[in-house]
Amino acid sequence: GAEAPAVAAQPTGGGKTFQTLLVSTEDNITTIRLNRPDKKNAITVEMYNELIEALELAGKDDSVITVMTGNGDYYCSGNDLNNFTKIPEGGVEKMAKDAGELLRRYVKAYIDFPKPLIGVINGPAVGVSVTLLGLFDVVYATEKATFHTPFSQLGQSPEGCSSYLFPKMMGAAKASEVLLFNKKLSATQACELGLVSEVFPESSFQSEVWSRLKAYAKLPKNSLALSKQLIRGLEKEKLHAVNDAEVERLTERWLSDECMQAIMSFFQGKSKL
Amino acid sequence: GAEAPAVAAQPTGGGKTFQTLLVSTEDNITTIRLNRPDKKNAITVEMYNELIEALELAGKDDSVITVMTGNGDYYCSGNDLNNFTKIPEGGVEKMAKDAGELLRRYVKAYIDFPKPLIGVINGPAVGVSVTLLGLFDVVYATEKATFHTPFSQLGQSPEGCSSYLFPKMMGAAKASEVLLFNKKLSATQACELGLVSEVFPESSFQSEVWSRLKAYAKLPKNSLALSKQLIRGLEKEKLHAVNDAEVERLTERWLSDECMQAIMSFFQGKSKL
Amino acid sequence: GAEAPAVAAQPTGGGKTFQTLLVSTEDNITTIRLNRPDKKNAITVEMYNELIEALELAGKDDSVITVMTGNGDYYCSGNDLNNFTKIPEGGVEKMAKDAGELLRRYVKAYIDFPKPLIGVINGPAVGVSVTLLGLFDVVYATEKATFHTPFSQLGQSPEGCSSYLFPKMMGAAKASEVLLFNKKLSATQACELGLVSEVFPESSFQSEVWSRLKAYAKLPKNSLALSKQLIRGLEKEKLHAVNDAEVERLTERWLSDECMQAIMSFFQGKSKL
Repeated sequence: GAEAPAVAAQPTGGGKTFQTLLVSTEDNITTIRLNRPDKKNAITVEMYNELIEALELAGKDDSVITVMTGNGDYYCSGNDLNNFTKIPEGGVEKMAKDAGELLRRYVKAYIDFPKPLIGVINGPAVGVSVTLLGLFDVVYATEKATFHTPFSQLGQSPEGCSSYLFPKMMGAAKASEVLLFNKKLSATQACELGLVSEVFPESSFQSEVWSRLKAYAKLPKNSLALSKQLIRGLEKEKLHAVNDAEVERLTERWLSDECMQAIMSFFQGKSKL
Repeated sequence: GAEAPAVAAQPTGGGKTFQTLLVSTEDNITTIRLNRPDKKNAITVEMYNELIEALELAGKDDSVITVMTGNGDYYCSGNDLNNFTKIPEGGVEKMAKDAGELLRRYVKAYIDFPKPLIGVINGPAVGVSVTLLGLFDVVYATEKATFHTPFSQLGQSPEGCSSYLFPKMMGAAKASEVLLFNKKLSATQACELGLVSEVFPESSFQSEVWSRLKAYAKLPKNSLALSKQLIRGLEKEKLHAVNDAEVERLTERWLSDECMQAIMSFFQGKSKL
Repeated sequence: GAEAPAVAAQPTGGGKTFQTLLVSTEDNITTIRLNRPDKKNAITVEMYNELIEALELAGKDDSVITVMTGNGDYYCSGNDLNNFTKIPEGGVEKMAKDAGELLRRYVKAYIDFPKPLIGVINGPAVGVSVTLLGLFDVVYATEKATFHTPFSQLGQSPEGCSSYLFPKMMGAAKASEVLLFNKKLSATQACELGLVSEVFPESSFQSEVWSRLKAYAKLPKNSLALSKQLIRGLEKEKLHAVNDAEVERLTERWLSDECMQAIMSFFQGKSKL
């Protein structure tokens, strides 16, 4: 839609250019747009690092709210499993340790984000891009979005603070279907469970959401930032502890036979998520 | 309806008469009725103090349950903004400090309330009268009730323990629309989010609710009080800490330019909530 | 249905035979079936002890998931009130103390359960069999199931960690109707409140649920167990403290006049739950 920031070689915002993201600031809104549409916006190591930097810059700039969305049909297909195919000199132990540390810093950037963070979920979301939604302040989704966290299918375990925030939000009986048993949620289901604030028809999604966001961005900036920090501050320490525990568990998982075999099956086309 | 305690110069309860409230005890139910109907039951400094006292008395009397409701079309339009127009000798700093301390004591009275507290929401609710509902045990609402917390619009921040209880109850994605972005909820929406226990048609609201309350008031008194205290006791310490943090943040807000300008605009009719 | 483990004198699982339970292991699923159908699966002292033992064995066996369900029309009618009619030599104080300690150990077995625990709720559930569902990972219910916790009606107070988990799951306004005011929930209502994961038509309940459970049981075992332990570990300490507080309160209640009179009325047919 006309509301979406144009794809520009020169960003309108802080001037920083990224390889995997489109970042711009307009109307008091900084928009971080995942930009690997041909790869369904799967998150590479480079993209994790760029997202951490973009969030850091957005937290400090003059914008009132920050928006995260995806370019193309997908919002984000999650962790790029090719991240696990480049074994470094230190072997798989080194790979798992580095990946864990990167994930820890990535989730930390969301926990510590100091102003309202709004997700504009333009299509399917998978894995860490779903679990992190619990750390967003508002999440608007098109009706064609889906939410899928196939952790156990890949021999893995939940992250993004979802092991704490999902049961808190929807109760264990619904959270476990999602986090343990790979249940894929429609946008409407995700909204009923509290993961999504509101669902919009695809035809009017961009126009309805962006006109709402522009109104939000005219509200008193400090009032919004300080209110968000008040809400988040109450459980920040807890969230950091959860992040640490999740990363520790997941790092162990990455080195397990169950996980290695599941990922191998995935690449051999034997398993389908 | 016939069920509502009659407006009497002589209260049928403990004998205490209030200026801004109607308080009576009948059928093991103490009812506290906000009684400034021509001001939409906006809460003045006097009314805050009377509510604190009425809750203290109700907590100690022989009633089994306590009911809070409003006289007239509104349940409560929240903090009377005229509270901010009487600058005391100590200046605005003194005014903000006193207002903060009063709010802290007011919310504390709800956190510490020792028996079931039931809200009978007879019409629109605004601001602190909405946020405090998270500290009620049961909330029954007429279909014509609405729930609105325009904090950021007034340059302010959430109170009444809502910064903790609302995200806990409905998840951050829905709580932030309400607490940060001024979303007004219908009674049905508030019920879906867990803020309201059940919504009734306006035509039968009073009769249905009061027959239910009379049945509740026949249940074993100690079993109810001790069960409520068990539930509340688990997070009482946390709630007091949240109340303190919210009051501290709000007191700072009241002295900010953003807030002063927003309130001035409100009185000049430039802004509409 | 054909999916349910056959009733066999020789269990197919670990070989242990119980008086009040049918326990078997098949297709990586250990099923614990309450087996006092003529008493609506009311839990006697013997049954509490057998359930603790069955859970301990299931937690250690080779199965991937553990299922709890009921034999006959009821899932479970809760604590067998006849437990209160056999006064031991030490008098009612001794009886209350022993019953409290047994309950504490029983709830502890659920808090500490190390792999996914799934409830297959085949009919009405009452009392502790409802409150404990907050400690299950997934709960599937037939449409004819109901959920009822008439604690205050019997002069008692909530257990099974429900005083913490129910408000966390559904908000205080809905939890108090259930835990304080004896509201009986339909399966659909329980699902809306997050106590139940999904409701099925009675005609296809067993076949739909068991085909789903068999698929779950083929997922990587360690990934499931470690993910569940991650989720549960975050609040295990809290849950044990809640269990202790609830048992202490309930033990006092059992010795109160309110409770004794309420239970006497129940046996004299004067009160109906």
